[in-house]
Amino acid sequence: MTEERRRVEDTRKVGVWFVGARGSVATTATAGCAAVAAGLHPPTGMVTETPPFAASRLPSLASLVFGGHDTAACPLPKRAEELTAAGVLPYGLAAAVRGELAAADDDIRPGGPAPGDTRTDGELIASFAADITDFTHRHRLARTVVINVASTEPAPVPGDPRLAPSSLYAAAALHAGCPYVNFTPSTGLRTPALHDTAATRGLPHAGRDGKTGQTLLRSVLAPMFVQRALSVRAWSGTNLLGGGDGAALADPAAAAAKNAGKERVLADTLGALPEGTVHIDDVPSLGDWKTAWDHIAFDGFLGSRMVLQTIWQGCDSALAAPLVLDLARLTARAHEAGLSGPLPGLGFYFKDPDGGPAGLADQYAALLAFAARLRDAR
Amino acid sequence: MTEERRRVEDTRKVGVWFVGARGSVATTATAGCAAVAAGLHPPTGMVTETPPFAASRLPSLASLVFGGHDTAACPLPKRAEELTAAGVLPYGLAAAVRGELAAADDDIRPGGPAPGDTRTDGELIASFAADITDFTHRHRLARTVVINVASTEPAPVPGDPRLAPSSLYAAAALHAGCPYVNFTPSTGLRTPALHDTAATRGLPHAGRDGKTGQTLLRSVLAPMFVQRALSVRAWSGTNLLGGGDGAALADPAAAAAKNAGKERVLADTLGALPEGTVHIDDVPSLGDWKTAWDHIAFDGFLGSRMVLQTIWQGCDSALAAPLVLDLARLTARAHEAGLSGPLPGLGFYFKDPDGGPAGLADQYAALLAFAARLRDAR
Amino acid sequence: MTEERRRVEDTRKVGVWFVGARGSVATTATAGCAAVAAGLHPPTGMVTETPPFAASRLPSLASLVFGGHDTAACPLPKRAEELTAAGVLPYGLAAAVRGELAAADDDIRPGGPAPGDTRTDGELIASFAADITDFTHRHRLARTVVINVASTEPAPVPGDPRLAPSSLYAAAALHAGCPYVNFTPSTGLRTPALHDTAATRGLPHAGRDGKTGQTLLRSVLAPMFVQRALSVRAWSGTNLLGGGDGAALADPAAAAAKNAGKERVLADTLGALPEGTVHIDDVPSLGDWKTAWDHIAFDGFLGSRMVLQTIWQGCDSALAAPLVLDLARLTARAHEAGLSGPLPGLGFYFKDPDGGPAGLADQYAALLAFAARLRDAR
Amino acid sequence: MTEERRRVEDTRKVGVWFVGARGSVATTATAGCAAVAAGLHPPTGMVTETPPFAASRLPSLASLVFGGHDTAACPLPKRAEELTAAGVLPYGLAAAVRGELAAADDDIRPGGPAPGDTRTDGELIASFAADITDFTHRHRLARTVVINVASTEPAPVPGDPRLAPSSLYAAAALHAGCPYVNFTPSTGLRTPALHDTAATRGLPHAGRDGKTGQTLLRSVLAPMFVQRALSVRAWSGTNLLGGGDGAALADPAAAAAKNAGKERVLADTLGALPEGTVHIDDVPSLGDWKTAWDHIAFDGFLGSRMVLQTIWQGCDSALAAPLVLDLARLTARAHEAGLSGPLPGLGFYFKDPDGGPAGLADQYAALLAFAARLRDAR
Repeated sequence: MTEERRRVEDTRKVGVWFVGARGSVATTATAGCAAVAAGLHPPTGMVTETPPFAASRLPSLASLVFGGHDTAACPLPKRAEELTAAGVLPYGLAAAVRGELAAADDDIRPGGPAPGDTRTDGELIASFAADITDFTHRHRLARTVVINVASTEPAPVPGDPRLAPSSLYAAAALHAGCPYVNFTPSTGLRTPALHDTAATRGLPHAGRDGKTGQTLLRSVLAPMFVQRALSVRAWSGTNLLGGGDGAALADPAAAAAKNAGKERVLADTLGALPEGTVHIDDVPSLGDWKTAWDHIAFDGFLGSRMVLQTIWQGCDSALAAPLVLDLARLTARAHEAGLSGPLPGLGFYFKDPDGGPAGLADQYAALLAFAARLRDAR
Repeated sequence: MTEERRRVEDTRKVGVWFVGARGSVATTATAGCAAVAAGLHPPTGMVTETPPFAASRLPSLASLVFGGHDTAACPLPKRAEELTAAGVLPYGLAAAVRGELAAADDDIRPGGPAPGDTRTDGELIASFAADITDFTHRHRLARTVVINVASTEPAPVPGDPRLAPSSLYAAAALHAGCPYVNFTPSTGLRTPALHDTAATRGLPHAGRDGKTGQTLLRSVLAPMFVQRALSVRAWSGTNLLGGGDGAALADPAAAAAKNAGKERVLADTLGALPEGTVHIDDVPSLGDWKTAWDHIAFDGFLGSRMVLQTIWQGCDSALAAPLVLDLARLTARAHEAGLSGPLPGLGFYFKDPDGGPAGLADQYAALLAFAARLRDAR
Repeated sequence: MTEERRRVEDTRKVGVWFVGARGSVATTATAGCAAVAAGLHPPTGMVTETPPFAASRLPSLASLVFGGHDTAACPLPKRAEELTAAGVLPYGLAAAVRGELAAADDDIRPGGPAPGDTRTDGELIASFAADITDFTHRHRLARTVVINVASTEPAPVPGDPRLAPSSLYAAAALHAGCPYVNFTPSTGLRTPALHDTAATRGLPHAGRDGKTGQTLLRSVLAPMFVQRALSVRAWSGTNLLGGGDGAALADPAAAAAKNAGKERVLADTLGALPEGTVHIDDVPSLGDWKTAWDHIAFDGFLGSRMVLQTIWQGCDSALAAPLVLDLARLTARAHEAGLSGPLPGLGFYFKDPDGGPAGLADQYAALLAFAARLRDAR
Repeated sequence: MTEERRRVEDTRKVGVWFVGARGSVATTATAGCAAVAAGLHPPTGMVTETPPFAASRLPSLASLVFGGHDTAACPLPKRAEELTAAGVLPYGLAAAVRGELAAADDDIRPGGPAPGDTRTDGELIASFAADITDFTHRHRLARTVVINVASTEPAPVPGDPRLAPSSLYAAAALHAGCPYVNFTPSTGLRTPALHDTAATRGLPHAGRDGKTGQTLLRSVLAPMFVQRALSVRAWSGTNLLGGGDGAALADPAAAAAKNAGKERVLADTLGALPEGTVHIDDVPSLGDWKTAWDHIAFDGFLGSRMVLQTIWQGCDSALAAPLVLDLARLTARAHEAGLSGPLPGLGFYFKDPDGGPAGLADQYAALLAFAARLRDAR
């Protein structure tokens, strides 16, 4: 890329296409990006706004343009009001960024497949891809990153020849020449039919399943036990959450997909999976606020029995949204820099990453190395 | 050192001289070393028994010989029985290592100064040093490491010309030509009178204040908040413990010394000390079992208020003893390898280390580098 | 009282005079009373709105008229907006009851004594009493209840001949012929100078120190241990709170007053005070949201050591306000019914009650008996 | 009963026949009864040893004779050693009561039905009853109480004509003319075939499912929310336990039986079952030590959202054993006093009682009334 072309590109905008664009995470990310870009709030929770990323030539927050697919009809400004009443968005923010929300809402297209939809997988992929391409062209975007933030879908049924909905969208992203991020535990690109397509087409991708609470803690605490030579006997956990994710995960099949990611960090870090179960309970009255309790029984010197318990209380959307914005910027820049295939440097963000280390400290070091690589890329 | 001399030295024994040799930590370390060396228990909690240290040429557990100073008179075998009744030592262990405990007890000399003791600081230092040298000679030890595991003493009174008791023992260690480890928050070598003596005399030393519970967790969790760009507003904590340490820390002056170390890790890692207080409560009925509750209030995206709480329940002596054995071996080997002065590579073990990073992951990396250095030293 | 006079009185209004009328508790009570009376919210947390109180002839919420003393100047409608932003009042409520808040604000008079105030105790009492009497007359109120919800004052200095500020207001209430409720741990009527005055003047009073969180739990849990013959060894606790109360209680003297109440429930219920300390920490960033952690170490059969821990997270003002409204109604009706002196039937509401049982279940039974007595009174 | 006959009877012994006589609860009860009777330990956890029961003419601890059925073969003295190593029994106790344990072990008969057992229900009942009658006659006991402390059995399959094992033992108790206590959630007498038999035969009985941890707390805390008019939105809980009960409850059918009892106390006390799930996880490494975490989301004034969390850590057998001894004594005395049928006055002890109030305070009052009734009976 010539310097001149870079200067031109630097001034061009970057698309962020959410699968699940009217959900809590997408609404919070869209509203929050506008608020932080306008200086109304500090960029708390956005790792890409910290000094180590300053020279990585990431697209600015102001340059991001939002759109997406959703099956829900409630307009984004109204969703933002709902999230304010629920305590997710701060008082006054929805009104302050109403224009940006309405603009993004205009770029939301119907998702699918709806029950009774007779289109083939190929037709659906083509239709979704056309929506994304149209968005990219209309806004004259340098590129568009597709990010899945929809509710968790059930784990795929072995032998089913149809693609899971998340995989249809992932295929559409690749079809439209877009980098792809899967922030959910749904299948996305993790299916043989799509496995190598992204790399073949020169597209970077990242996933799977954003690490926002219990698993974040586990990826920090498990290495401590290893480093101190303490023997973890049992690691048990219960998650309470309402909102869309709580309801989706009340389906045992969906919960199984999510729990597989949660257990991976323990098995990878501790060397073996300890005793213990993870529960995900749908508690509608908690809304978007989630609580995770972990109970870790470990042996110390001479077999003495000790216990660590942790209780994490946070707002799911507020935990996820800044990471989603981080991933949009990092993946867009990776695409610009010519990277393709899985990005193990982004394992910091995921429960079930595409390779790389399992402990958070090592993942952070890998992320900094990735930031340096972006800095030094053309 | 010639190869031949090394071979000779390898077969020689290494002394571990505990200041506070009849306390819970020293008793657990002495009994536990014998039990692990005899294969009765796995070396849980001993970092130096993990693979990265296999080639560091540390003295074997079987080569360690124990002795020390104490003002208490209760013999070690009886102390071990008491610790069994209190649930600190496992059933049957005290009987299994009774011989080793009795032998160590024979090498315990009276500590001081007792109330009314009229000896000068210099006389006390000379007396303590003579005890240590006698121990080293009688057992024909290659060297002796002096380790302070006595109860926390009150913070020194500014302007008091007398040395704190912990400093008298530290000076005696140097006088006797021994490496020194301060596992407590007491002053030890951290006084101008002794500050540079160790390095001058070619002796390595390490300290201060073993990191066994709440601060261990803090050194793991604080970096997570930084790496995730989350804003810690307040970090509050309460520690409940009985046993000797609980009683000692019921003295506000002693607690102040300990809390200074606890706060250091937050200030060093987070960049600024957040709101919040640390309490240390003496709860005699808890005995050697301690509980630490931490409450961390942090802000996420758009100012959303979130909370992490941790509860750590462990046996103080069982947490400390394997670290004390680690430090004895590492410091003895450092002495053999010709290192002198503070050992920042051992910051992994301390609340208030002699330099080096503050987060546990970085401290672990530094420890591994130190292990490699020992491996490669003569 | 004749039936006719009763009918007249039933239609008359009752005054609620808050000492600390612009504080969080008073603002929440004033706003909440209007909101519940208007049917905007259910009366959650108001015991007097439950069926057992239906026949006790309490003044209706709509009949309550609010005023008070305060040294702060910020108008109630603005305070309500602040409490909305802090998450204490729900979105939209402040606007809905703006008229009622403005009306109450017009009835707030300057408190005191301000620093440098040269008035004698007698002059201050007379001045405060005149304010209250003026309020009662202007609004043609059947009676006015004075309720102290100001920040906790330091424990009185023994030998100080001056009355504490809370006692000045309490004396003013009696002087004005008003029932008095002390919802704080401040002195109020608990001083020899005032001890018997209320009864002498035929005025009922209630106190001291509203039971809204940790002590509420303790008054429920302590009886369980007694009834199950379990032996409580240590009961430790830490309270974190910001807001005015947190700041006031950062003063050790004020905290001492509060803790005395907290310990009373344990001593009274368990028969002896167990080991353990209570801490109250000022954590400004928590605002009005408080967290209380309790750690109860108890012995079971054959000395087995067990632990119960509780974590209570609540909004201080939202916990206190409905109880304050309850007390206003109950005390007003007690006055109407001719009761005077301390009301031990209201111990349910207080940490440090005027007699009666210590366990919550027994206190609830006493409260129901009190409700029946009010029902049957003239 | 004449005074003389009473004096004779007072000196006679009372049998306690455990179904599950070699389990942790029975072993702890048998060993503990001997230890307390010998003055080696205070009767912590035994409600019947508190003053209100002093005049109820309960059989003394020294008068109890133990025997029972079990399918396991490990002798009681060995089981007690195992429980000592596991920290359930205190060091030294097993040796001190070895004689009593061996004696009780001699009175344990094989349980059943074993897999492949071809005996009919009637034959099994007759065989079990003969064992009990033989025990009663050999020891010349005034009476024998049969208590089910075996592992929880799966919930009965609707339509299965066979009696559940617990019901076979219950029928045998009645057949042998013995009072019956069901300390487990298994069916026992709660089946139409046996429903009215006990009353018909003049035998008292009590059950079901001993209340030792999470449900005990719930029966104390739920009334608090009701009495304070706070609105419980969701009550979630997770139990971790190893030991036999953990393994038995890993079977979802057995867990369902247990959870039904746990939910009953909430539904009965709160008036409606709130949101939330109860999990029982088998965590073998915890052994007999169980942990229960509860998370209670409730609304306060004006809909403010608050949370109470509790963590209960106790030794299951040490919690159960003193209650089992209480029930043996109370039921034996009830039999002596001529009471028959269900004893609602014992609801204090059960998750799923035979009538009576649901809150612990009311259940304690009912228990005291029952104690008075026993005192006043012939």
